[in-house]
Amino acid sequence: MNCNTPTDICFSFEGFRSRGGLTDVHRDGWGIAFFEGRGCRVFIDAQPSIHSPVAELVRHYPIRSNNVIAHIRKATQGVVALENTHPFMRELWGRYWIFAHNGNLRDFAPTLDGSFRPVGSTDSERAFCYLLQSLRARFPDGEAGRGEVFELLRELTAEIGRHGDFNFLLSNGDSLFAHCATKLSYIIRQAPFATAHLKDQDVSVDFRDVTTPDDRVAVIATLPLTDDELWTELAPAALFEFVDGAPLASASTA
Amino acid sequence: MNCNTPTDICFSFEGFRSRGGLTDVHRDGWGIAFFEGRGCRVFIDAQPSIHSPVAELVRHYPIRSNNVIAHIRKATQGVVALENTHPFMRELWGRYWIFAHNGNLRDFAPTLDGSFRPVGSTDSERAFCYLLQSLRARFPDGEAGRGEVFELLRELTAEIGRHGDFNFLLSNGDSLFAHCATKLSYIIRQAPFATAHLKDQDVSVDFRDVTTPDDRVAVIATLPLTDDELWTELAPAALFEFVDGAPLASASTA
Repeated sequence: MNCNTPTDICFSFEGFRSRGGLTDVHRDGWGIAFFEGRGCRVFIDAQPSIHSPVAELVRHYPIRSNNVIAHIRKATQGVVALENTHPFMRELWGRYWIFAHNGNLRDFAPTLDGSFRPVGSTDSERAFCYLLQSLRARFPDGEAGRGEVFELLRELTAEIGRHGDFNFLLSNGDSLFAHCATKLSYIIRQAPFATAHLKDQDVSVDFRDVTTPDDRVAVIATLPLTDDELWTELAPAALFEFVDGAPLASASTA
Repeated sequence: MNCNTPTDICFSFEGFRSRGGLTDVHRDGWGIAFFEGRGCRVFIDAQPSIHSPVAELVRHYPIRSNNVIAHIRKATQGVVALENTHPFMRELWGRYWIFAHNGNLRDFAPTLDGSFRPVGSTDSERAFCYLLQSLRARFPDGEAGRGEVFELLRELTAEIGRHGDFNFLLSNGDSLFAHCATKLSYIIRQAPFATAHLKDQDVSVDFRDVTTPDDRVAVIATLPLTDDELWTELAPAALFEFVDGAPLASASTA
């Protein structure tokens, strides 16, 4: 989720967490990261989200955030363990960066210079470390413009994507980058707000009750979370940058 | 807390959290980090721990961990905000490192080379970044022995300590380093186990019910958490390294 005003994710989370063991097979842990200003809170759990006490907390505690990244895991590489649970966090240029990956990278063994090292054993964390290492190497002082960061991410994504499915979400608390390798949809919610009904649970919300006219919220998900709204499916090999609840840039990584 | 077997911190946490707004004045946020294997979970909240929904979760969810660092904040430098809430986390040498500080450093402005940059505005996070930067600079490939890391930490602690009170806890999930500038006590709990009663709440535990004979647990706190056990007060300027629930090394930073 990427928004122009701090927004809670309780409604979307309700449907999302069902996919961690109830309506979908992703049972190998889950996590969610909330940016609040420059700060960031990451909740991770190696239990399926449908049984997780931490998920119960997130469900009932309306954390208001401009950028949220959540992930439910189906292990491909790396055992089921906390250190392999997405999203991952690192600091670069005095900002926290959060990363979650859906897919599987084969024979992906980039040279890591030690500036960012994986703690666990997933291809995903390795890709994240490589992305950040490359950003730092290109812009050591962090004085990169938005367009420059986007363009470098496009190059790196194309390179990493040659190793397999590389659907990912990446945020520094300001921009949210979304890459669709195989499957990713988004929706922009803004005035005039309406109601929405979850696909995975019989739960509805009337966004008119919980928004102001200026609010704008982008929700990006592997599969649409609601069944009565119009979601936009991203084309394969599309990289998007969302800022303030709307796409700011997009490009092909093919 | 540093242990030789994964242990939950529910009992100690009960007393600890009371100090965040109930029995003590540290109301400017709180946090707790749990190592589980190589993975680490950090829960932080800018609310006083006595009112925090996240504290409620931690209180009821027995996370078993070999190393836990918790902190309740009374702001000295930096506003009350999530990015200024301890403990802080970074990755170095493919391990997460966790840091919490109690004290106030004046005119502490080390040259940071960009490998670790503060996200918030506290003297504490600055000191943490400087510690990790110095560890990496001295041992770029991470192939340092325990004694070498301890000795370098002693030097750096002495240097930073010249700027003010530098009580801290630092862990990489393996060792727990504790520095006493002004105030720090510890207790080792091991067989034969007995009962204990909290200082801050009328709560008791019988450790015989929740331990096995081989368990060993070190609890380190600014002030003793129980009123019927014998705590050891650290001398000012003492740096300790705890491993597997016992002190492994100690030295003076005076």
